[in-house]
Amino acid sequence: MPVAPSSPSQALTRLGIVLPAPRAPRFSYRSVVVDGGLAYVSGALAIDADSGGLAFRGRLGEDLDADAGRSSARQAAVSLLGSLHHAVGGLDRVEGFVKLVGFVRSTPDFGEQPFVVDGASDLLGDVFGRDRLPARSAIGVAALPGQGSVELEGVARLRRD
Amino acid sequence: MPVAPSSPSQALTRLGIVLPAPRAPRFSYRSVVVDGGLAYVSGALAIDADSGGLAFRGRLGEDLDADAGRSSARQAAVSLLGSLHHAVGGLDRVEGFVKLVGFVRSTPDFGEQPFVVDGASDLLGDVFGRDRLPARSAIGVAALPGQGSVELEGVARLRRD
Amino acid sequence: MPVAPSSPSQALTRLGIVLPAPRAPRFSYRSVVVDGGLAYVSGALAIDADSGGLAFRGRLGEDLDADAGRSSARQAAVSLLGSLHHAVGGLDRVEGFVKLVGFVRSTPDFGEQPFVVDGASDLLGDVFGRDRLPARSAIGVAALPGQGSVELEGVARLRRD
Repeated sequence: MPVAPSSPSQALTRLGIVLPAPRAPRFSYRSVVVDGGLAYVSGALAIDADSGGLAFRGRLGEDLDADAGRSSARQAAVSLLGSLHHAVGGLDRVEGFVKLVGFVRSTPDFGEQPFVVDGASDLLGDVFGRDRLPARSAIGVAALPGQGSVELEGVARLRRD
Repeated sequence: MPVAPSSPSQALTRLGIVLPAPRAPRFSYRSVVVDGGLAYVSGALAIDADSGGLAFRGRLGEDLDADAGRSSARQAAVSLLGSLHHAVGGLDRVEGFVKLVGFVRSTPDFGEQPFVVDGASDLLGDVFGRDRLPARSAIGVAALPGQGSVELEGVARLRRD
Repeated sequence: MPVAPSSPSQALTRLGIVLPAPRAPRFSYRSVVVDGGLAYVSGALAIDADSGGLAFRGRLGEDLDADAGRSSARQAAVSLLGSLHHAVGGLDRVEGFVKLVGFVRSTPDFGEQPFVVDGASDLLGDVFGRDRLPARSAIGVAALPGQGSVELEGVARLRRD
C-alpha cells in the first residue's frame, strides 16, 4: 500500500520549520497578490528569526562560499513560504510553485548560482513534492536590498477546491 | 458619504502627468502583449519628454543618490504606464498591476533598491489605489540598456467588462 | 495569392536549426512547467551541440563584443525552444512567447543589451511570426551560471486546440 503523501503543512512540521509571523511590507508593495488562481510572491530575503534583520549578507565568490549561499537561499525560501502561508490561508491551499527566480549577489566570476538556488528549490520539493518543482532561473546580480545574499521571487498555483 | 475613488485617468490628470506618445520599439519585441486578461509590459526606462532620450543615466551608489534613483523609477513608471495606455485603449481599462520588477543599476554595495523602486510603486498606488499595489521585487544589477538607471517590467490585470 | 505562413517546425527546418536532445536538469527544477495554457520555461544558456557544455562564456564589454553576444543569445534561444519542444509535444503546439527576459552578463558600462537580446527575439520572430513577438526585458547582470554570457527565460502560450 503506498504511503499517502504528506500535506505541505505536515512536511513543514516534519522538517522542523516554523514559518515567520506575517510582516507588513515596509515599502510600497503587497507581499502576495492573488490573480487568476496564481499567487505572485514578492522578492524575499533570508530573515533572522530572532532579530528580524537579514540573516545573510555578503557576496558569493567573496564573503560567502557556495554552501553558505545555499543556506541563505533555503532561508529565503522560508520567508517566501511564510508570506504565501499568511496571504492565502495556509500552505495546504497551495499546489506548488510554477516559477521561481533566484537572484544571487555575486562577484563577476562566480558561476555556481544553480547550486546556491537549489537550497530554495530543494525545500520547495520537500514541501510540495519533487514532481511539483518549479521552472526556474538562477541569476548572478551586482547588489541586493540591504546587502542581502539571495533574493527569491515566485509564482504559486493555488488549489482549485 | 464616501468620496468616489477617481479613475486612473482622473488620477493622472490630478497629478499633472502627461503620458508619452506611443513609440514603436526599436528592437525586436512588442511593448505590451495581452494574454488571458493580463498585459505583459516590456522593460521601461525613464525617458526625457523633450529629447526622447534617456532621462537618467548613471549608477546608484556612484553617480546618482537614492533620491535621484527614486525620481528615475517614477519616470520609468510613466513610460510603463504610457505603453500600457496606448496598447489597451486607455488606463481606465486596467485594474492595476499584479507584478512589478525594478532593476536598479547599482554598485556592489548599494542596498537601497526598495527605496528607489518605491518611486515607481508609489505612482502606481496613486493611479490605481494602494489596495491594488503589485507584488514586487527590487534587484540591483550591473548594467542596463543605454546606461539607464532603473528598468521596470510589469504585469497588469485588465478589467473584465 | 498569399503564401501560407509556415508552421514553427517548418520554419526551423528552413532555418537549418536542429533542436538539442532533451536533457534532464542537473539541479532541482523542471525545464518547463505548463499551467493554465502557459508554458514557463526555465533559464536557458547557449549550449554547444557537440560537447554539451556552454557555447559562450565571458562578459559583454570585456571578453565578448555585441555581435558575439547576439550569437550567444540566438544559441540560448535554441536551448529554450528545445526544452519547450520536448515538454509540450512539439513547437507546432505553441502559439508564441508572451514574455521573454534576457539576462546579459555585462561590465558596468556595457549598454547594448537590447541589441544582444535581439539575437534571441529575431529567432522567435522567424519561428512564430513577428506579429507574435513577446514583451521583453533586457538586463545587464554581474554573473551567470558557469560564466555563461546570456540567459533567457520565457513564458509561451500553447494553442487551445
